[in-house]
Parts: sequence; structure tokens; C-alpha cells
Amino acid sequence: LASLLRDRAAASAAMLAAFGDATLIRAALDFEAALARASAAEDLIAPEAAAIISEACAAIQVDVAELADEAAHAGTLAIPLVRRLREQVAARDPNVAAFVHRGATSQDLADTALMLQAKAGSALIISEARAVAEALARLAEAHSETPMLGRTLLQAAAPITFGLKAAGWLLGVDAARQRFERETAQALRLELGGATGSLAGLNLAVVTRMASDLGLEPSILPWHSRRDGIAGLATALAILIGAAGKVARDISLMAQSELAEAFEPRTPGRGGSSAMPHKRNATGCQVVLSAAIRAPALASAILSGLPQEHERGLGGWQAEGAGLATLFELAHGALCALRAVVDGLEIDAVAMRRNLSAADVGDDAGHSVALVHRALAEYRGRR
Amino acid sequence: LASLLRDRAAASAAMLAAFGDATLIRAALDFEAALARASAAEDLIAPEAAAIISEACAAIQVDVAELADEAAHAGTLAIPLVRRLREQVAARDPNVAAFVHRGATSQDLADTALMLQAKAGSALIISEARAVAEALARLAEAHSETPMLGRTLLQAAAPITFGLKAAGWLLGVDAARQRFERETAQALRLELGGATGSLAGLNLAVVTRMASDLGLEPSILPWHSRRDGIAGLATALAILIGAAGKVARDISLMAQSELAEAFEPRTPGRGGSSAMPHKRNATGCQVVLSAAIRAPALASAILSGLPQEHERGLGGWQAEGAGLATLFELAHGALCALRAVVDGLEIDAVAMRRNLSAADVGDDAGHSVALVHRALAEYRGRR
Amino acid sequence: LASLLRDRAAASAAMLAAFGDATLIRAALDFEAALARASAAEDLIAPEAAAIISEACAAIQVDVAELADEAAHAGTLAIPLVRRLREQVAARDPNVAAFVHRGATSQDLADTALMLQAKAGSALIISEARAVAEALARLAEAHSETPMLGRTLLQAAAPITFGLKAAGWLLGVDAARQRFERETAQALRLELGGATGSLAGLNLAVVTRMASDLGLEPSILPWHSRRDGIAGLATALAILIGAAGKVARDISLMAQSELAEAFEPRTPGRGGSSAMPHKRNATGCQVVLSAAIRAPALASAILSGLPQEHERGLGGWQAEGAGLATLFELAHGALCALRAVVDGLEIDAVAMRRNLSAADVGDDAGHSVALVHRALAEYRGRR
Amino acid sequence: LASLLRDRAAASAAMLAAFGDATLIRAALDFEAALARASAAEDLIAPEAAAIISEACAAIQVDVAELADEAAHAGTLAIPLVRRLREQVAARDPNVAAFVHRGATSQDLADTALMLQAKAGSALIISEARAVAEALARLAEAHSETPMLGRTLLQAAAPITFGLKAAGWLLGVDAARQRFERETAQALRLELGGATGSLAGLNLAVVTRMASDLGLEPSILPWHSRRDGIAGLATALAILIGAAGKVARDISLMAQSELAEAFEPRTPGRGGSSAMPHKRNATGCQVVLSAAIRAPALASAILSGLPQEHERGLGGWQAEGAGLATLFELAHGALCALRAVVDGLEIDAVAMRRNLSAADVGDDAGHSVALVHRALAEYRGRR
Repeated sequence: LASLLRDRAAASAAMLAAFGDATLIRAALDFEAALARASAAEDLIAPEAAAIISEACAAIQVDVAELADEAAHAGTLAIPLVRRLREQVAARDPNVAAFVHRGATSQDLADTALMLQAKAGSALIISEARAVAEALARLAEAHSETPMLGRTLLQAAAPITFGLKAAGWLLGVDAARQRFERETAQALRLELGGATGSLAGLNLAVVTRMASDLGLEPSILPWHSRRDGIAGLATALAILIGAAGKVARDISLMAQSELAEAFEPRTPGRGGSSAMPHKRNATGCQVVLSAAIRAPALASAILSGLPQEHERGLGGWQAEGAGLATLFELAHGALCALRAVVDGLEIDAVAMRRNLSAADVGDDAGHSVALVHRALAEYRGRR
Repeated sequence: LASLLRDRAAASAAMLAAFGDATLIRAALDFEAALARASAAEDLIAPEAAAIISEACAAIQVDVAELADEAAHAGTLAIPLVRRLREQVAARDPNVAAFVHRGATSQDLADTALMLQAKAGSALIISEARAVAEALARLAEAHSETPMLGRTLLQAAAPITFGLKAAGWLLGVDAARQRFERETAQALRLELGGATGSLAGLNLAVVTRMASDLGLEPSILPWHSRRDGIAGLATALAILIGAAGKVARDISLMAQSELAEAFEPRTPGRGGSSAMPHKRNATGCQVVLSAAIRAPALASAILSGLPQEHERGLGGWQAEGAGLATLFELAHGALCALRAVVDGLEIDAVAMRRNLSAADVGDDAGHSVALVHRALAEYRGRR
Repeated sequence: LASLLRDRAAASAAMLAAFGDATLIRAALDFEAALARASAAEDLIAPEAAAIISEACAAIQVDVAELADEAAHAGTLAIPLVRRLREQVAARDPNVAAFVHRGATSQDLADTALMLQAKAGSALIISEARAVAEALARLAEAHSETPMLGRTLLQAAAPITFGLKAAGWLLGVDAARQRFERETAQALRLELGGATGSLAGLNLAVVTRMASDLGLEPSILPWHSRRDGIAGLATALAILIGAAGKVARDISLMAQSELAEAFEPRTPGRGGSSAMPHKRNATGCQVVLSAAIRAPALASAILSGLPQEHERGLGGWQAEGAGLATLFELAHGALCALRAVVDGLEIDAVAMRRNLSAADVGDDAGHSVALVHRALAEYRGRR
Repeated sequence: LASLLRDRAAASAAMLAAFGDATLIRAALDFEAALARASAAEDLIAPEAAAIISEACAAIQVDVAELADEAAHAGTLAIPLVRRLREQVAARDPNVAAFVHRGATSQDLADTALMLQAKAGSALIISEARAVAEALARLAEAHSETPMLGRTLLQAAAPITFGLKAAGWLLGVDAARQRFERETAQALRLELGGATGSLAGLNLAVVTRMASDLGLEPSILPWHSRRDGIAGLATALAILIGAAGKVARDISLMAQSELAEAFEPRTPGRGGSSAMPHKRNATGCQVVLSAAIRAPALASAILSGLPQEHERGLGGWQAEGAGLATLFELAHGALCALRAVVDGLEIDAVAMRRNLSAADVGDDAGHSVALVHRALAEYRGRR
């Protein structure tokens, strides 16, 4: 346990579970079971062997801490996990043990398991991003005509409506959600190639069958050292976090005491201060902004790992899993925090009007209202 | 002049020109001329005023060094450039000067000019990426059956064909090119919103007309502080550079004296050594790998700038231009270098076979050949 | 539990414990106890109150998962932890509860606890870095005259001795260790300032007493939003990881089958392959190289957080803890892996000589031997 | 010319010159001249040859654009520059041409020239950082007792004095300046090693003599692939920029219309708006904050390049020069901008008091005044 306290501060329990050890081990076992079934369907192993392996995958119990130590020592999760699985299988039928993991390599298991986790994580992200967008659309619509001061370079500039600001937030979050969906369609693929990606001892039909079994897309070639799909996911998550960060930046600035235009909802136990019990902190925005500081660098580490060596690299792909998992965690943490903020956002239209008047910049909000409707129409057409 | 020597080492002359000062000033003047014409078409200014402004934009000569000093002092290019333009216009008709830049803000000019530069830069990138892919496809096809040693974790592993390796390179570069094209379709948009993005003093028809005039897409709302398009371009460029870096990594490893399987083409004046004149360096790969080290961080800086303040931020968007320009420069420099390497790559199939035999891993290259054809079919279907 | 499997693959059990939840909670309670004792010594609270608080801090048991949920909701660890502590104290004496955490703010607790963890972590790092340096010094000395091929730009270049290569590794790791020690001397400081760093309700003598009690340096001013110490630690760790990465890069290249000059030690259960049981992977180098890909970005995220708002920022400092902890974990993981590699490194001097002869670059290793002795003398003088 | 407009917006003319082409070529020629003189002093070449080479280095004129094209093609500056120099020397005495660059390698020239540029750049940085610190010290002293609202998590918190805020700024900038000076003492070293760093054909006395001639420290071993010094410089610059960014963040927040506590000085031509001529933008802070967004990533790219291959790497060190130069440029640009801001900062103590009263948090600024004096004493003792 590195630190649940640190991880949980930034991530939802649901996403921590999606990238947790139990899920990872389950995904790895699903890989082995699906491989056995697909191999049997293609007459590469006997149907009885596949049945025994599938049963063992369903039944096996693993001590996580012990497995983690052994995997760290071995340099890969597959070795100690496959050994355990072979023991389970051997207990049922010693002749079947050799058919476990047949034709696959460690990275086939690691990459496929990561993609299974990413698929579950993506569903959480997309659902939350859509909910945030809906909440922002409601806000834009409700305040399409609420006048406020537009600010540029942190200075009073010219009037807008609050709806225009919210519409910009909406398009930012929703465009980032769309990009993320496009990237999942590229990236969430089965990895199966064997030692050097030649499918030696396997065949293309096994790939197709396994992919279908696991609910992933097959890939044209094994992608052991072709990591643009992973990089696409990582950067799309970082952009999504940044789009959420833009909203949190603005709300936290509007919530400054001297502006007092918007406030996070009051929630018992949230936003308090250990030194000043009366204070109301922008705790939701804090989670989002913190994620927005961390995410770009995590994406950049994954980009740095792209030039991997030969058929399967040394160090590059091993560096990706933790970073990608953290990006999923930060993205969901940020979106959940933002959703709570936007859903319950308290707007003080009187304060907005007061600040606008004080700035002495007139009241011409230009085409703000028309722009809000234009953005909402675009957003609704997009769904 | 910061350093032409440093910039040119990593970038093509063509891309340096696309992001050079002359092009930037021309793009900024094109913005002003198009704004005047669109405003006239919408009866916001007189047609004669638009004609005079267009003429002045075409005729004006600017001292770059002086302009750069003034722009640095002012904090924006628009102020000193618009002042010069107004002087030119005033010399033709003093009453028209006030109509220059009418309704627009500095960032409208800066963002639109950047997008015009990016559009030209994107065409260079896409063309070069397609040429690299074609060269890789030829390589994959020619060597679909050439046996070689597959290597994993930098160790001898199992046989493949060189065509399989090249087919992986191909899919990597081509998928990254596709992603980049998708992002250009999102990002290359006109920016026009005025001070706070409300189009005060302008209207939506001006946006449509200007976009059409300048060959950019219009945008639903001004995107002054909604920068996912810029971030999408930046990360797609970084992934493209990484995909090129993967090829360069492999070729430079294959070119090691002890492997001697592949060599960059001999080009007079290239790849020499100041200490060892007989030596043949992997100079093309060096350019690509150097770009692959620099690009992820440049993308991350643009991601870091996403949470910009209010209607137009302070520091965030001003940080993007230089980084985005450098990413375009590195991407084109890397692709041009890689194209020369791949086009003239010398393959030593005898050495490949010798290294394979020495590794004592048999000669079963699995489904390498079928996978090559599968990848080529996918690639060709994609164009 | 995010993922022990992922964390443990890159980190030692000892460092995971140093940054684990139990240690964090203990450090936070040590902060509260030391604050109470120092406040009593300065007559700000009664000695009896301090004694009760100290006892409660020693006795309290906390459910980590529950605490993590509450801390995530509250936006800070301090609030639910201090509440629990007050309940414990109130059970002993209701009148004392109000004196718990008196004068302090959430960030005082969070920063000080992080520094206490960092202090323990630093001791682990320094000890391991010194051991790596010693192993490298032995290697340099033993092979000061062992001829090998020097390689530049991944090509055969000119002769050196292996000792010269190892001496370069040594100076790199040891200089990075020195820098890290310098940064710990700057950074490992008590944080105590109260809500806005004015020490309202406290005084400077409390700071001095608490620092002494906790084994940290006091700081001139509270550093709630002045984070150069944290950034110095983070970047020094990244440089140390990079220096280890340089060694791993070279060893993994020398271990390529076609060079066969150096090999990681054979360790049962390590370096195996799930697809090719006979294979011997560079698993130690993999851990180091993977860390070297991840570390720069983690450091950059901490650098990105430097411009924090006002007296205590929103999002910036909350983003640091997880990244700094990960850097400590990666650094120790990399150093432990490297130490095992270097301690047991198998050198094949015959292969080195064979590769040198094959390169046909003569046998003049210049002043390699003298340079090795020079480096060793410098290193030994430095300790 | 990539873009003077973009470079100059972020950097001073002085620093652009320090890292400009003319300076780079001059530094490279100084390297060659010093090498010849030191070689002659050690009887490796004739004194007459050294004299001729020195003269040629002083006299030679180079077409930068042509040189840049050739250097890009060759993959290194040294090859075309040394060729030109040899032609110059041959015109004086054909027998001497072969002694130009004798014993050195391209990277010796490139690294030493970079360090000569960095030395000049460092002097500019240190001087400006000291001036900023002095200005901040004056501000802290003048306002040690000026009450204002302390703000945490962007919310009103508790009173401080403005002097306390300024004292924090001071310690941040000054500690970062100290770190930078420490790193320059490590990093600003001659590079001389020849092809593989063995000093073949040279000797250690040449190193010492050249270093002294050029005003750099010698290094224990050549550092061709040991780049911790470069990384130390880069990260120290990023921390310095971040410390400046902290000041700019606070000032730009205090300058918001609704707070109105501090304002950048009015300077003709600065801070204007192309859309709103009456507006007063925080242009100095913009330059600093923009630098603070870009710098972390540039440092991270240099950290990513640390694990360089063998005696001299492929791509890694070639990636450093441009990034390091940009960091120097951003640091000086940020410090110059900040100095102007702080030197002329307009403080509105009445507004500070008004905002404090409105927050209704009492008037206990704790030990703010004592802390200011403590910080000033520390700062003054440090110089």
C-alpha cells in the first residue's frame, strides 16, 4: 500500500477500484482464460484443457502482497501469476499445465489487462464527462442573459453574460470528451503476439476470437512497441482534465471574497478549514486544479516512452501503466469534483451586476445571448 | 535572432519560414484585411474604408527588429502593428484609420495568425508523413520475407521478418498522421470575438465571411480561453514525433557495428565526425531522436496552460505560440530526416541472417509474412 | 489501495513503507504532539494539556480507509484526523480538546508530515546511492586497464578502458548524490505558521522547539506558498534517477547478444521470460530505465506548481505530495535495482577485446588509466 | 530566423545576444584558439602553428545562414566550422591546417561553446536576480507594518502585513538565486576529451591550460555523456523562474479590479489593449507567468535526456542546447520583467485596509512584523 490517503484525495473510489490490484489480477486471468478458449476453438489446444484452464482462472485465489513481491523481483507480473495458475491447473490435470499461457508473452498479458482496466475506466470517464456537460448546459441556458463583467488578463474588460462563460466551459469539456471517445476507439485493443509479435504458435483467428471474448477490438498487428494508442489515451485524458481545470480556475476566481459571484455548494464536512472553522474553501475546485497541475507531466512521460526498442522495449512500456492509471484516476476525480461543484453552484447575479457596474464599462454584452444559443445547439446536435 | 544555428539543426528551412517573422506579419495583416472586408460586407464599415485598409495591408513594410522590441514592450504584437497600419491608412485617408482592427482584440489577431501559420505548417507535415509512410510501406513489402532476429528487452528473442518490423513502423507513423489530420480539422479555426468574446460591434456573419476569406473554419464560440484545439495539435505532433522516434531508435540500434543490419544512406557532408573522418554516424536518426526527447515536454507545457483565466488569460495563451511553433518545426525536421533515412536505407540481409543464426532461436518467424500483408492492406485501404 | 502491484514493481518495500499511510498518520500525530509540547513549554497551553494530547497521539488507532474517504471529502487530511484526535483527548479531559492543533493550519500538518516522511526517505536514498557509488568505484578500479571499444553516436569510435566508462558512471551518481544531500539540507524543514503564516497565537520559540523535537530544521518564515525546497528535492531526485539511468542504459546496451560484454547477475526468479524460459532479461536495468522515463515529468509537475496563490494556494501544494512520494519511491527502486546489477555485474573482458579488434580502431586508449585514477581520487576525497 | 517576434516577447535583447549565433560562433572559435595555444604550451603542436590558428580564429568571417544549412546537414556545427577554419589557416600556411581541432571532437566544441554562452548568461541572471531581491527587500521593509488580508485557497483568511508577503517573495527568489549560483559552480566547465573522452593525443595539462584560458573550470573527467551539470543548471533556472512566477501570480491577483491593492507601474506603450485603450494590463506579470508555464517542461526535457548512450550519445545531448538556451532566455526575461514591476509597484494601502475590514477577520497580524525583520536579517546575512 503506497498511500491510500494520497491516492484517494485525488481519485474516486470507483476509479481506484477499476485500476486496483483485484481488478488487475482478474483482468490478467480473463486474458488467460480467453486465450485458452480461443486456442481450443482453433484446435491449438484440446477443449478439455481450455475448460480446465478457464475453471482454474475462475477459482484461483491470490495473495496480492506476495504476488507483488514476486512480480517486482521477476520484472513482470506474468511470471509469478502464470506459475500460480499452472499449479492450480496441474492440481486438476498435470498434463494441462503446459497449455497455460501457450503462445503468449508477458506483455500480451500486461497490455491486455491494462486495456481491460482502461475500458472500464473509460466508461466511468465518459459518463461523468457527459454529466458535467449536461450540468454546464443547464447553467448556460439558465444564465444566458445574466449580465456580468468579462475579464481579460485578470482585469476588468467588457460585459458578457454568465451564460456565455458557461457555454465556453461546456464546449471545452464536451470537445475534450469527444476526443477521448475517439482515442478509446483507437486504443482499447487486445494485445496478442507472442514473444516477438509474429503470432508464432498462434494465428489471426485466435486474435479475433479472443478480442470478441474480452470485448476489445482486435489490432492489425501486435502493438508491443507501437504505443501511439496509449499516448493518445493519455493526452486525451490530460486535455479533458485541463478543460475541467479551466472551469475550476474561473469558479475559484469568481469565488474570491472580493468578487463573490459564485460559490461551491455547501456540503457538510467539505471545504472546512482546520484553522478557521467559519471558512468555506473551494475544495472541489482544488481537486480539479491539483489534477490539472499533475496531468500534463504524466502525459509527457508516456510520450517520452514512445521510441521503444525493437519488438518489445526495455523500460518504456513498463513505465506506462502507473502513469496511465494515475491519469484515469485524476480525470475521474476531477470530473466527479467538478460535477458536484457545477450541479450545486450558487450564483450571485446581484454581485455580478455590482461588479459590472463598478467597472464602468457600459452594458453592451454584444451577441452573448445569441452565442449561448449557438453553443447549446451545437452541443445538443453533437450528442 | 535567437539562434538560427540551433533552430536549423532541428528544423527544415521550409518550416522555419512557415513560422518565421515574415510569415507571421503577413498573417497578421491578412487578418486585418479580411476583417475590414468582412465588416464592409456586413455594412459595419464603408466599402471604401475596407479597400483602403486592404491596400495598406498589402503595401506596408515593417522593420522586424523594431517591431519585435515594441511588441515585447507592449506585451502584444497587435498594438505596435496596428499602430503602424493605422499610420499607413491615415496617410491615404485620415478618416479611415479608426476602422482598422475595429471590433477585434489583440488575441484575435495573434490566434488567427498562429492558425494561418499552423495551416501552412500542417500541410508540410502531412505531406512529409505520407511520404515517410510510403517509403516504409515499400520497405515492408520488399522485405516481407527477409528473416531477422526479433529482439525483446534488448535481448535476442525469436525470429521475425524485417518486413514485420517495418510494417509496425508504418502503422505507427500512419496512425499518428491520421490523428494529426483529425486534430487539424478541429483546431485550424478563425479567432474572432473582440475584447471579451461577445462579438460586440461585430456579428456572426463577419465570423463566417472572415473564415471563408482566410481559408480557416469558423468556430462556434470564440476560443480565447478554450485551448483544447491547440492542445490537440500539440499532442498529436508529439505523438507523430514519437512514432518517427520509434523508427529511428530501431534503425540506430540495427546500425550498431556489432549488428550491422541497416545503415543510413551515405550522403556527402552528412554523418561525418570531426574527430574520426572515416566514421559514419546515424545523423538522420540523431535528428529524429533529439526531437523525440524535446517534444513531449513542449506538449506538456501547452497542456499546463489549459486552465486559463476568465475570458482571456494572463500568461497562458502567451506561452503557447513559441512551443507550438517549435513542435511544428521538430515534427517536420524529424519527418524530413526520417524520410531521407528510410528512402535510402541500406539493408544487409546477410548480416540479419547471421545474427539470427548466432542467436540459436530456430527459424520460425510465425505469421510474420501474413501480418505484413495484413498491415499493408490496412494501410492502403486507409488512404 | 490503488495498486500495490504497480507501485511495488518500481519501488522498494522500505520506501513504500516510508511514504505509506501508517507512516503518514504517525507523522501527522507526531506533529500534533510536538506542537502541544512546544506550546506548553512556551506557556501557550497548560503542561497537563500537552501531556494528555501527547498520550492521545500515542494511543489513537485510526481506520485508514475511513479516514481516507473523509479526508478526500474534506479536502484535507487534517480535518478528520484532528477531529478523531480531539475525540480521544475529550475522552480523557473534555477541556483539553480545544487545545489540539491550536494555532496550526491544515497545511502545517500536511507539510511537516511530508517532510518527516521525506527525511526518512532521504536517509534510504543517500545510503543506497553511496553503496552504488562504492560498487562503481570497485568496478572502475578493477577494470582500470581492461580495454574495450569506445562508442559514440551508437557507432564504434576509439578505444577506452572499461574502467573509464565505470569512472564516468561513478562521478555521475556521486555528484547527483551530493546535490541531493545539499537539497535535503535546504528542504527538510518544519512547517508552522498558522492560517496565513503570521504565527498568530504562536511564536518563534514554538517553531524552534518543535523543529528540534521533530528532528527537522526550523525555517526562517513559514513556506506555505514558497516551494523551492520541495522543487529542489524533486529535481535532485530526478537527476539522481537520470544518473542511474545512464548506467543502466550502457549496461543494457553492452548486454545485447551481439556485444555480450556485460550481464546482470543471475538471480533465481529474476530476468526470466514468460514466453522464452531460457532467456535472461536485463530486469534490473529495466527498473532503472523505467524510473528514468517517469521521473522528469514528475519533477516538472512540481515545478509547474511553484507560482502558488497568496499565503496558501489552491491546488498547487495539494498536487505535490503524491508526485514527491513517487519520486522518492522511483529513486530508491532504481538505486536498489542498480546496486544489485553493479554488485553482481559479470564482465566479459574477452568479448570486449573481440569487439574492439573487430572495430579496427587501433588500441590507443589514450589517458584512460590516468583518468580512472583521477576520478577515484576525486571520489575518495569527496566522502 | 525562426521568429524574433516570438523570442523577443519572452526574452531580453541581452540574453538573446548571449545565446545568439554570433556569440556561439565566437565561442566555438575561442575553443579552437585556446586548444591550439594549450597544445603548443604542451609541445603537442608548434607554437607557430598555434599562433596562426589563433590569428585565423580572430580573423575569420562566417556566413551564418550558409553555416547553419551545412551544420544541419552534417549533424554537427564543428564539421563545417572547422572546415572553414582550416581553409583560413591553410591560406596562411598549408602545413598548419591539419593541427586545427587536433585531438578534439565535435562535442568538445559544442559543449564548451555552450558553457561559454552559459557563463555569460549566468552573470546576467545573477545580477538581475540580485536586483529583484533588493527591490523586494525594500518593499518588505517599507511595508513591514502595512496591514492587509491574508488569503488562503483563494479565500479571505486572516490578517498579515504586506511586508510579510513581500518577505516571502524575497526569500523565494533569493534562495533560488543561491541554488542557481551553486549549480553554475558545478556546471560551467570545459569539455575536452577527444572522440571517446580518453584524451588520446592530448593530456590533462592541456585541459587545465585551456580551462584557465577560457575562464571555465576544468572537469575531472570529460562529461560527454554525464550531463548532471547541465540538468542542474536547467532545473535551477526553472526553480528561479517559478520563484519569480510566485511573485507575479500574487501581484496579478492583487491587481484585479475588485481587489485593487497593487498595480504595475505605468509605462508608456506598455500594458495597453488593442481593443480597450483605457485598460491597464499586467504585462510584466504576463511575461513572468508565461515563462513559468514554459520552464518546467523545458527542464524536464533535459532531465529526460540524462541516460545517454556510451561515450557520447545519439540525440540526447543534441537535444539540450536549444532547451537550455531557452531557459536562460526565459529566466532573464522573467527577472527583467519582474524587476520593472517590483521597482515601480504601486501599493494602495487604503484598499488593502478596506479589503481587510470587509473580510471581518479582525486585525491580529500575529508576528508578521517580527517575521519580516527575521527574513530581512537572513537575507542580508546571506549576501
